[in-house]
Amino acid sequence: MSRRSFIKKTALTGLGLSAFGWLDSHAVAFSQSLPKVNRKRIEDRIQALAMYGQDENGHGYRVAYTQGDIEGRKWLMELMEKAGLNPRIDAGGNIIGSRNGKNPNLKPIGFGSHIDMVPDGGNYDGTLGSLSALEVIEILNENKIITEHPLEVIVFGNEEGGLIGSKAMVGKLTQEGLQQVSQSGLVMGEGIRAIGGNPEEIGSAERKKGDLHAWLELHIEQGGILESENLQIGVVEGIVGILDCEITVEGFANHAGTTPMKLRKDALLAASKLTVAVNEIINSVPGTQVGTVGKIEALPGAYNVVPGKVMMGLEIRDLSFEKIEMLLGEIQVRAQRIAEETKTTITFRREPSFNLPALTDASVQLKIQESANALGLKTKHMQSGAGHDTQQISLIAPVGMIFVPSVGGISHSPNEFTKAEDMENGANVLLHSVLALDKQG
Amino acid sequence: MSRRSFIKKTALTGLGLSAFGWLDSHAVAFSQSLPKVNRKRIEDRIQALAMYGQDENGHGYRVAYTQGDIEGRKWLMELMEKAGLNPRIDAGGNIIGSRNGKNPNLKPIGFGSHIDMVPDGGNYDGTLGSLSALEVIEILNENKIITEHPLEVIVFGNEEGGLIGSKAMVGKLTQEGLQQVSQSGLVMGEGIRAIGGNPEEIGSAERKKGDLHAWLELHIEQGGILESENLQIGVVEGIVGILDCEITVEGFANHAGTTPMKLRKDALLAASKLTVAVNEIINSVPGTQVGTVGKIEALPGAYNVVPGKVMMGLEIRDLSFEKIEMLLGEIQVRAQRIAEETKTTITFRREPSFNLPALTDASVQLKIQESANALGLKTKHMQSGAGHDTQQISLIAPVGMIFVPSVGGISHSPNEFTKAEDMENGANVLLHSVLALDKQG
Repeated sequence: MSRRSFIKKTALTGLGLSAFGWLDSHAVAFSQSLPKVNRKRIEDRIQALAMYGQDENGHGYRVAYTQGDIEGRKWLMELMEKAGLNPRIDAGGNIIGSRNGKNPNLKPIGFGSHIDMVPDGGNYDGTLGSLSALEVIEILNENKIITEHPLEVIVFGNEEGGLIGSKAMVGKLTQEGLQQVSQSGLVMGEGIRAIGGNPEEIGSAERKKGDLHAWLELHIEQGGILESENLQIGVVEGIVGILDCEITVEGFANHAGTTPMKLRKDALLAASKLTVAVNEIINSVPGTQVGTVGKIEALPGAYNVVPGKVMMGLEIRDLSFEKIEMLLGEIQVRAQRIAEETKTTITFRREPSFNLPALTDASVQLKIQESANALGLKTKHMQSGAGHDTQQISLIAPVGMIFVPSVGGISHSPNEFTKAEDMENGANVLLHSVLALDKQG
Repeated sequence: MSRRSFIKKTALTGLGLSAFGWLDSHAVAFSQSLPKVNRKRIEDRIQALAMYGQDENGHGYRVAYTQGDIEGRKWLMELMEKAGLNPRIDAGGNIIGSRNGKNPNLKPIGFGSHIDMVPDGGNYDGTLGSLSALEVIEILNENKIITEHPLEVIVFGNEEGGLIGSKAMVGKLTQEGLQQVSQSGLVMGEGIRAIGGNPEEIGSAERKKGDLHAWLELHIEQGGILESENLQIGVVEGIVGILDCEITVEGFANHAGTTPMKLRKDALLAASKLTVAVNEIINSVPGTQVGTVGKIEALPGAYNVVPGKVMMGLEIRDLSFEKIEMLLGEIQVRAQRIAEETKTTITFRREPSFNLPALTDASVQLKIQESANALGLKTKHMQSGAGHDTQQISLIAPVGMIFVPSVGGISHSPNEFTKAEDMENGANVLLHSVLALDKQG
């Protein structure tokens, strides 16, 4: 199904038509006959894994390549072993567990997420998708279900530090990337080695296009849209592209008492006008694009000196690369005008870390939506404003992502929380989507 | 002469009437009979004093209470000794040299400035006024002129660190002030001791109202007004009051990818709107007031996080206390509106260091103007946007200040520069103003 028809369907659903009205009645019957996940087991494991890397105040520091990460991965691999997944670690530090299917000629269906976190992060982020992937396997085991396709549970290494493990899997982790310093203090290569990978053989982690039948990732939304609209499941249409720009405003630092207003070249005044303009421009067109000035530094930075130089960080995200470029272009035009008004110069430098938007696969989206609706869950097609390993895997396989609500839209924080009922819903949608993709052929 | 009539006179001069037309012809005749300063000696001494506290790159670090300050003061006191000034150091660390007058019943006329500097500062700032004060004495000595009034050359200690010496002289340096840490790293009390003062007896430095007949300070303008208007001498009408406020904007830090624009509480957006509003409000009324947002910090300060908190520093300066309060009031009203628009809270905290405006004495202003015009120099009545020791001395004596042009308006910088001709002009105006004040009775 094309993206256009999806948008139309979503719009109609929004008009009050029951989503069920659009479903194949076979899908509902299929879903109702399927087993369900064990909510308690997911909850208990979330709590158990949270202990790894936790500090004395109960805050989470399971940063990739640190002791907490290493121990948490060991704990998880033991559970994967017990579930018969025979887990191994690839050269990029990704944990890969495998379960045979009936037909060894079919490509595996992969699913999973990551368990590393940002410093002082939350216990749900990638953890929910990782533990739910294990849960799916255990439910299949308990119900003695053997899929047609082989299955793979993948727990990527160092997602938060730049999608490191998934980059290795798609052949995009360069030698230069291996030399960058990670949040743990180790360079990436050494960090990968610390969790059991092999930086010297990084190429061996690479999977080719077509190696996977499909890829699914369950994740918390990290935003407040599902909660505010009282919906249970987000069907992710794509992961936004991210453009970061460092903007430098050069004025002239001078005495704030003796320099008349009209003789000033105030870099912070120019930067402030530009920050307001960014907000106006981002809001001036319809859509879900976001634009943020998240960092600013004014020099020399004293009450009594007119700022002579300001560095600021601009980030634009959207599912459309063209839209990001169009918005940046408008911002640059406005910057030029502000520079003239304020007698400053304003220059833009793109950070090299540009992430292209990654669209999910329309047929995978459909399986997720049907699975959710058959479970009686209300869905919304939405974008992921945050980056995920799935955006890398989209380069080699048809991918899909399932979102569940984040309370208050809070993430990357000790206050991050997702209700047990929502975790259960997400894991059931993951389970049923895997089975639907398997049934697909 | 009242301030109003001065303003009228200045306005008429500005219309093209010769300033000479307004002068008492006796003043011109008096001035023309007077000796002049030695430009070369002033220049040479500026260069000589610049060596004290200079680093290997030729930049000046003669910060109060450091070795460079101590040695520079010693050099200056030796010159004062040779000029017969019999210099002493008061309890606040001020150097005071005295020259008897014909009439021991008259109060002394004081003049001078300071020789300490900001880190990486310039060689002209207070140095010009200090060395010119010595020059005045040497010219009087060379011409065997004995004034009616006794004369005092005062070189204040630690002007740049908060007018410390002059505060001690007017009884405003508190025990708490003595405990503050100075730029040198020493607390003020210890710094004062390092330059020969006596913090235990700080009260002994105090002079009472009426102890001085008048006080004069020659200083570089530190702004670009005289240069841009091609004028030689600024007759200072007053030293502006300074109000500093720390403004805190509280929003909510959230993921810059997953938080839709309309759900944000962006503290930096609010701070930017406020910075633009400050500029608009300051420029919305006539006058020479200035308002500056000179410092800003956004937390947490990352490309991918909507800023949750911003601290910014606002400074307003004007000769009128009421105007400063009125402008701050308007800024606070606007801040309230911005807070509502942006779903943030904005709070203002006044820094305790508020400086009240200090007006100079109208009759002293007149002597300066007449002296300058009799020397053929073009003058402008102007405010001092920077703080000076003279603002403290205004509490105990009629004061006046003479400004000379700063090239490019640059100050507190290694690029600070005043031409030798302008230094000579300023020192001549100082000399002739001292004699005019002495003649006054």
